[in-house]
Parts: sequence; C-alpha cells; structure tokens
Amino acid sequence: MVPENLNLVPFVSVENMMDLVLEIGIDTFLRELAEFIEEDFRRWERFDKTARIASHSADGVIELMPTSDGRLYGFKYVNGHPKNTRSGRQTVTAFGVLADVDNGYPVLLAEMTILTALRTAATSAVAARYLARRESATMALIGNGAQSEFQARAFAALTGVRALRLYDTDPSASRRCRRNLADVGLDIRICSTAEEAVEGADVITTATADKQYATILTDNMVGPGVHINAVGGDCPGKTELHRDILLRSDIFVEYSPQTRVEGEIQQLAPDHPVTEIWRVFTGVAPGRSSESQITLFDSVGFATEDFSALRYVRSKLSGTGHYTELDMLADPDEPRDLYGMLLRREAQRREPVEA
Amino acid sequence: MVPENLNLVPFVSVENMMDLVLEIGIDTFLRELAEFIEEDFRRWERFDKTARIASHSADGVIELMPTSDGRLYGFKYVNGHPKNTRSGRQTVTAFGVLADVDNGYPVLLAEMTILTALRTAATSAVAARYLARRESATMALIGNGAQSEFQARAFAALTGVRALRLYDTDPSASRRCRRNLADVGLDIRICSTAEEAVEGADVITTATADKQYATILTDNMVGPGVHINAVGGDCPGKTELHRDILLRSDIFVEYSPQTRVEGEIQQLAPDHPVTEIWRVFTGVAPGRSSESQITLFDSVGFATEDFSALRYVRSKLSGTGHYTELDMLADPDEPRDLYGMLLRREAQRREPVEA
Repeated sequence: MVPENLNLVPFVSVENMMDLVLEIGIDTFLRELAEFIEEDFRRWERFDKTARIASHSADGVIELMPTSDGRLYGFKYVNGHPKNTRSGRQTVTAFGVLADVDNGYPVLLAEMTILTALRTAATSAVAARYLARRESATMALIGNGAQSEFQARAFAALTGVRALRLYDTDPSASRRCRRNLADVGLDIRICSTAEEAVEGADVITTATADKQYATILTDNMVGPGVHINAVGGDCPGKTELHRDILLRSDIFVEYSPQTRVEGEIQQLAPDHPVTEIWRVFTGVAPGRSSESQITLFDSVGFATEDFSALRYVRSKLSGTGHYTELDMLADPDEPRDLYGMLLRREAQRREPVEA
Repeated sequence: MVPENLNLVPFVSVENMMDLVLEIGIDTFLRELAEFIEEDFRRWERFDKTARIASHSADGVIELMPTSDGRLYGFKYVNGHPKNTRSGRQTVTAFGVLADVDNGYPVLLAEMTILTALRTAATSAVAARYLARRESATMALIGNGAQSEFQARAFAALTGVRALRLYDTDPSASRRCRRNLADVGLDIRICSTAEEAVEGADVITTATADKQYATILTDNMVGPGVHINAVGGDCPGKTELHRDILLRSDIFVEYSPQTRVEGEIQQLAPDHPVTEIWRVFTGVAPGRSSESQITLFDSVGFATEDFSALRYVRSKLSGTGHYTELDMLADPDEPRDLYGMLLRREAQRREPVEA
C-alpha cells in the first residue's frame, strides 16, 4: 500500500518543541530522552559513525553530524559562533532531520537548538550515573550560560544531586541561572570564585563557551572521588581543564576519534588511554571502580545523541500534535514524471479549478 | 542594528518552487541558473570543497553535500533509491539549506528535487557550450526518465540543439518525454534502439538510472566530433559507457576526487588525465580543440552547483513572494537565556494573554 501525502514531512518548530517539552514536562522529557540516548549507546556497534563534518571560518564553525543505525538515518546542522551574542543571536543554533533508510525519505524535520541543550544535559546525567560516586549530592556548575540550567535540571531529574554551587566570570549569568531554577527545589549558592564553587563538590560540571584554550579548573582544585563533567571544550583549540587534571583522571568519551580532535584530550598524546562510554553502558568496561578515583566525562556531543533525540521526539508526535506538515518532497503522480508535475502545475495556474 | 525575527527562515516548498520556476519561466530560469553555476565554477578556488558524505544501504544511498565560498555555506540532502518507483516514490529527492558563514544562521531552506533536476540540466548545457561542436543541432537522449525533459529544455534554451532522438528500454518513457516536450518546438523522434538514436547525433546525453554497471553506449556507436554528456553514472558501481569510449575521449569532470569514485572514470586508472570543468570556464584549459575530437562531460553533480542553485533561488525570493517563513531557530530575548525562553513559554501557556 502506498501511503498518501508522500510529499509531507512533519516539522517541529521552536514553538512546537517548547510546547512538546512543557506538555510532557521537563523532568519526564529529560528522563525519557536519557533512556533513548542510553539505549542507542548500547546499540553502538550497529551505528554508522563518522566524526562531524566541520566548515571553519574566522568567527565560528558550521557542522553536519550524520549517523545511521541501518533503519533510520539522522543528521544535525549546528553552528558555533561565540561572537553571536553581540548581535542578539544564539552562539549555537541547530536543526535536524530523521530519514527512512529504506527509501531515503525524510520523516522528521525539527528545531534542535532547544533539543540539543536537552540532549547534552541528558547525556551528561546518564554518564554521571555510571561515573559519579553513588552518594553525590553537590554539583559545582562553572559557566552559567545557555547550557547551565539544562545541566542542573538533568542532574536533578536523573541523579541524586540536590545542591548547586554556581560560578561564572559574569555574576549576572549566575544570578539568572539561580532565578531560572528557583522552582526546581535545589539548594543553590552563587560563588565568587571557581575555587569556592568546587570546594566540597561531588560533581564538577564545566560549561563555558569561549573558543580558546582556557583553564577553568587547575589541578589543586580537584580532590579525590570527584566526577568531572566537562561539557564546554568541544572544538579544536577550545579546552577548559588544566592538563594535569587529565593525567590524574580516568577519562570517558563518546567517540574517541572525534574527542581526540575536539575534546579536553586534544591536550594529551593521541594514544592516551580513554574509555568510550558505550562500553560502560553495556558493561564491557567498568565505570567508577573506587571511591577515590577521579572520573572525567570529556563530552563533545556525538551524532548518536542527536539521533536519539530526534527518534524520541518523533515517538511523541502523534500523541501530542505539536508539529505541522511541510510540503518538502516532490510527489508526482507518476514517479518518473517530475517534469510533467511542473506542466500540470502550469495548467492549474492558468485555469483555476472552480469550487 | 539587530534584525527582527531572527528565528524565521524562508522556506520554499515544492509548490512554491514550481510557482517560482513557472513565474520566471522555465527557459529564463535555466538560463539565469546557468549563469550562477558558471559564475561559481569560475570562483572555484574560493570554495571549500569536500566530496559528498554518503551513507550507503542495501537499497540506496543518503548523501550530504556541503560547500562554502567563505560568505555563504550551503548543503544539500539527497537520496538515491532506484527501487523507490515501485512504491510510488521518487528515486531521488532532495532539499537544501543556505546559511550565513558570519553567524551560522540558515537563510534559506528549499525543496531541491525539482531544483536539482534543473541545476543538473543547466550544468550539462553550460559544459556543452564549451565542449560540443559549435554547430551541434541534434541530441540523442538515452534514458527518458525524470531528468530527460530537463536536459532537453536546458539544451534547447542554452545551446543550438533543435532536434532530439529519444531512446529508453521502456518505450512508454520515451512517449511521455515526447508528449511533455510537445510545446517546446523541438523536432523529436522516438528510436527503437540506442544505435538508431545516436546515428548522426552531435551530442549524446545518457541519463539512465540503474544502480549497476551498464553499457548504454559501446565504442562503435560514437563517431568523431561527438560530445557525450554522461549524466546517469553517479555512484560507485554505476556507469553507462563502455571503457573503450572513455579511452578515445577527452574527459571533463566537475571535481576529480569525487568523479574518480562516482563517475564513468571509476573504470579508468586513478591517474588517467581528466580536466576539471572550472579550468575550461576560466580559460585556463582548452575545451574542444578540434572538430574530430570526442569530448566527454562525466557529470556526477557537485556541491557548488547546488550552492549556485540555492543562491539563485534566494536572489529571486523577495521579488516573487514564493516562500513561507519557518520558526526554526530559537530566538530568546536574551541570547544566553535559552532555558528562560522555555519558562516564559510555560507562563504564557498558563495565562493566555487577553486580547
């Protein structure tokens, strides 16, 4: 049976994405999304993996991140332009597409600026469930930009984190973060130095956005047993942690060929041992193995996470109706007659059909 | 000055693309598009070029084709699934995006199934102006599928071709092609063999769609002075011409690293001499240099052609209004406050604003 309306592709706009997230509830959305992400990491070996395809320019980067599990194909378009905030734009915007591998037809187009923020946070929280000490309750959150509240929400929804210590070089960013999280039920303190924020923290999340080598954390700031969730270093030339911290840590990554170029570990030798996180999720490799071990999730974001996010959103669409349909694919009555479709449209335009 | 509505991206649907093409006129559209394509080939060295990123499966391929000239970035999503016609779908569907390199924001989303058909034909015709004998008037068109009428229209609009000799293994395809072209003013004859079609032809266009090695043309069918426009062989394992023809021809390609994998020349040694067509357009290399020479344009389609097509469509939008605007980019009042946008939407949903 041929489905009708082959030309139409469901589209989730920014407004519909917000409504979808809010209708499901942010916590539930993050928990369910985390399940999809973890499930796809467990199926790691079935995915067609390539590092992202980046186009660098003076002020930023535009990237395509494709992947496929053999049944569905997905890709994300994402930019990174730190100077954008000066012109009222987002540093990062994104959209993505999911398609059917059997026939190549797109089955979903969705905004992914909001969705990426959610999937990045959900991925961090899933990794922390395997890597942070079980009793972890306090998280330092360094860098209080667009990703910070999502990280806080995901750790609150998916882990035992109940207290936040905020630090940003711009104190107004920390105040905004605290204000936005007022109703979440977290104990939140704004700190005046990064040192103050990390003191006594079980988890340290770094999410700063400068496109340069920076040292947000120095070696003396990281005590035994801490889990570091490094989210901000995600392109060549952009890191957040002092190299000495990396040398003391057991390092976990998404996809090592990509992380060696983009992550904190670009500071290390190319053969420095790291563990791909899917091996931890599947039980092939250990996560945290002692109370004193320092674990580091060097997160740069991988295509499977976007794939999981699109797959999750798609699974929620029919129930909620938060999408429109785009006339995006040419659908002639006779498949080989693309030109004839143009002729029939011409005839239609000349002689409007009477009602 | 910050532009308003940073969240909106112009979208050209299939219907709007048809209306745009018809309003401009197919011939004018092809001629103007050809100018953009030739202009961008002349600027070849300014483009960031990569071979397409392909994801192959049992029944087809999904590809991303990105490129950038440093000011604009463009990519096309395109699939190729020969079996699709059985389920009423197109073998090839496509859409594309153009973005501003300075800030990474998309500036155009457009259907590209129709647009690709037009740009492929326009590229063939531009190449033929440099490679076919000046007095060429008769074209054999072998393979009368979805691309055939576009090739015919482009050669009629851009070259001196006035007579067509059609051949397809499916005679109904040839009949449909002739019927669709009835008003173009070409002298059209349907042939019962490929040999009959090419006899006396100045230009031979091959545009068949099977995903396999095929021999549409054998060596004895190609006489001196002919220009071969080989459009159909465009992926590994898919060729249309006998190897001996290639050895007698001067071969012109779009981007040799891609064509050596995807084009007719995959049958030749990897160092077989070929000329990139931009060198002909800029006058660096000769095109046709004698009346008896056999020239071959081994066309597989390159990302700059899609870039040119998107750039051309964008240049026509404001005058014609054939687009809608998509709420595709998150645009919070305060750029770093993505999460706050979600909260404000939540408040809005709870307390609808009174009219």
